[in-house]
Amino acid sequence: MSFIKNINQRTPKEIRALIRQGKWDKPTAGLAMGYAQANIVILPEKYAFDFLLFCQRNPKPCPLLEVLEPGRYETTALALCADIRTDIPRYNIYRKGELEAIEKDIKASWKDDFVSFLLGCSFSFEEALRKAGIPIRHLEEHKNVPMYVTTIPCNPAGAFHGCMVVTMRPLPPDKVVRAVQITSRYASVHGGPVHIGNPLEIGIEDLNKPDFGDPVTVRKGEVPVFWACGVTPQAVVMEVRPDLCITHAPGHMFITDILNEELANH
Amino acid sequence: MSFIKNINQRTPKEIRALIRQGKWDKPTAGLAMGYAQANIVILPEKYAFDFLLFCQRNPKPCPLLEVLEPGRYETTALALCADIRTDIPRYNIYRKGELEAIEKDIKASWKDDFVSFLLGCSFSFEEALRKAGIPIRHLEEHKNVPMYVTTIPCNPAGAFHGCMVVTMRPLPPDKVVRAVQITSRYASVHGGPVHIGNPLEIGIEDLNKPDFGDPVTVRKGEVPVFWACGVTPQAVVMEVRPDLCITHAPGHMFITDILNEELANH
Repeated sequence: MSFIKNINQRTPKEIRALIRQGKWDKPTAGLAMGYAQANIVILPEKYAFDFLLFCQRNPKPCPLLEVLEPGRYETTALALCADIRTDIPRYNIYRKGELEAIEKDIKASWKDDFVSFLLGCSFSFEEALRKAGIPIRHLEEHKNVPMYVTTIPCNPAGAFHGCMVVTMRPLPPDKVVRAVQITSRYASVHGGPVHIGNPLEIGIEDLNKPDFGDPVTVRKGEVPVFWACGVTPQAVVMEVRPDLCITHAPGHMFITDILNEELANH
Repeated sequence: MSFIKNINQRTPKEIRALIRQGKWDKPTAGLAMGYAQANIVILPEKYAFDFLLFCQRNPKPCPLLEVLEPGRYETTALALCADIRTDIPRYNIYRKGELEAIEKDIKASWKDDFVSFLLGCSFSFEEALRKAGIPIRHLEEHKNVPMYVTTIPCNPAGAFHGCMVVTMRPLPPDKVVRAVQITSRYASVHGGPVHIGNPLEIGIEDLNKPDFGDPVTVRKGEVPVFWACGVTPQAVVMEVRPDLCITHAPGHMFITDILNEELANH
C-alpha cells in the first residue's frame, strides 16, 4: 500500500479507481467529503425478494439507495464507471452466517445470480450536524461510533427478522431538537432518531459497553440520542445464515458520486 | 346496492366491511376523510422482484405503502382485519395486458403465489392542499383529475419500463410555492410536483385532451402543476403484458386505517 498524496482532495471517481487498483484498503471515513457513502449487502437471488421487502418495511435501519438486478455489478444511480466487485476497500465474505474471508476484491467469488443492495450511511447526516455546530463525540475522540443491539423489533419479511441496531451520539440538551430537525431531512440515510434519552427503554443496559464500535464519553447533563444503524441489515442477514452473503467490511464503504445534500428530502 | 346511511361518517373498518359485504361498489373519493387510500397492483410471484425494484427506483410515481408476501391477502401495516381479495369496491382483472373482467371480489381468482402491492394516492395530499386554502379544480368541477402520459422516462427495472403518468392541477401563480411545500411533506403519496408550468416540456401537447380522467378549466394566468401519478405502475405493468395482473378499478381504492397526517415526512 503506497501513501496516496492528497487523497482527501480526490474525486469519488478517482478514489474508486485507487481502491480498484488495490492502492487504498483502509476505512473511507473522511474521504470525498460532501459525497454520500453506502453500506453494501450482496445476496444470492433466492434471498433477494425477501431482503428487498425487509428493507421496504424497515426504511430507517435499511434505507435503500440502489439495488442492482441479478448479476449486475455496475451501479447507475449512485455512481458511473463503478464496479461493485472491486471498488470497496475490503469485503467480508460470510458463508452460512460465519465470516469466512476478508478480501480486497470479489471478482473470483462473483456469481451471476448475486443481487447487490446499497444502503444509506449516517456519515451523510453527520456532515450536516457538524455544519450546524452540533458536536459529534466519536469524531472528536477519533473513535468508531458506538452501536447497540436494541429490543426494538424490525418488521419481519419472509425469512428475515430481528432487532434494530442503533448508533448513539451524546448531545447537550439544547442541541437535541436541532439534531432531530436536521437528521429528519435525511430520510434516505436513516432519518430522524428512533429514541431520545433513556437507553433502558430500548433494551440498552450500559452505554459503556456497545455491541459494536467504541464507547464514547457521555458528559454530565448530556442526552444520549439514538439513530437506526446500517449494521441492522447485516445483523439480520447473519441470523438467517444464508449460503453466502458478502458485505463491505465495517467502515470500508462504497463512495458514491451523489452529494449528501442531494439525499436531503427537501 | 342499497343506500348506505351516513357512509361519510363511518370508520375505515366499517366501510371496508360494507364493501366486503357487497354493499358499496362505487368510487371511494370522499369516504373516510382524513384517512389514506391506496392504489393496488397484484402480480404473480415471478414478476414480484422486478416490480418491487421498479417501485424502489421510481418512488414518485410508485410510492410503496405496503407489500404482502406471496399468497398473503391480509394487510398489517395499513389496516387490521382487512382482506385484499374482498375489501376493494371493484377490481380490474388483466390477462396478458388486456382487461378481461371487472369483479367485486377476487376470491375465486386468488392464487397462492399472488403478491400484492399497495401504493400511495394523491387523495392524501389533496386534503392537505385544501386545508391550506389551495383550490383543486377537478374537485370544484366534480370531475376526475386529468392524467397525461408524459415523455419523462421511468427508471427501468428488469422487465418493467415506460414513461411517467402525471396528474395536473391548475393553480393561481401565488399558490404554486405553497403547493410545492405542502406536497413535498408527503413523499409516500407522490411528494412534490415533477414539473411546473410548461406542458410541452414533458410531452403534453394539449391540456384539454388528457389520456385518462377529465379535462378541467385552466383559467387565464393559472399555472399548470404536474405530480407523478399512481396510474404509472398500472400503465407500465400493462406494457409488460404479464399472464395475469389485478388492480383496483380507477377511483375504487383500498381505504386504510392510516391518517393522511401519519404519512407526512415530518
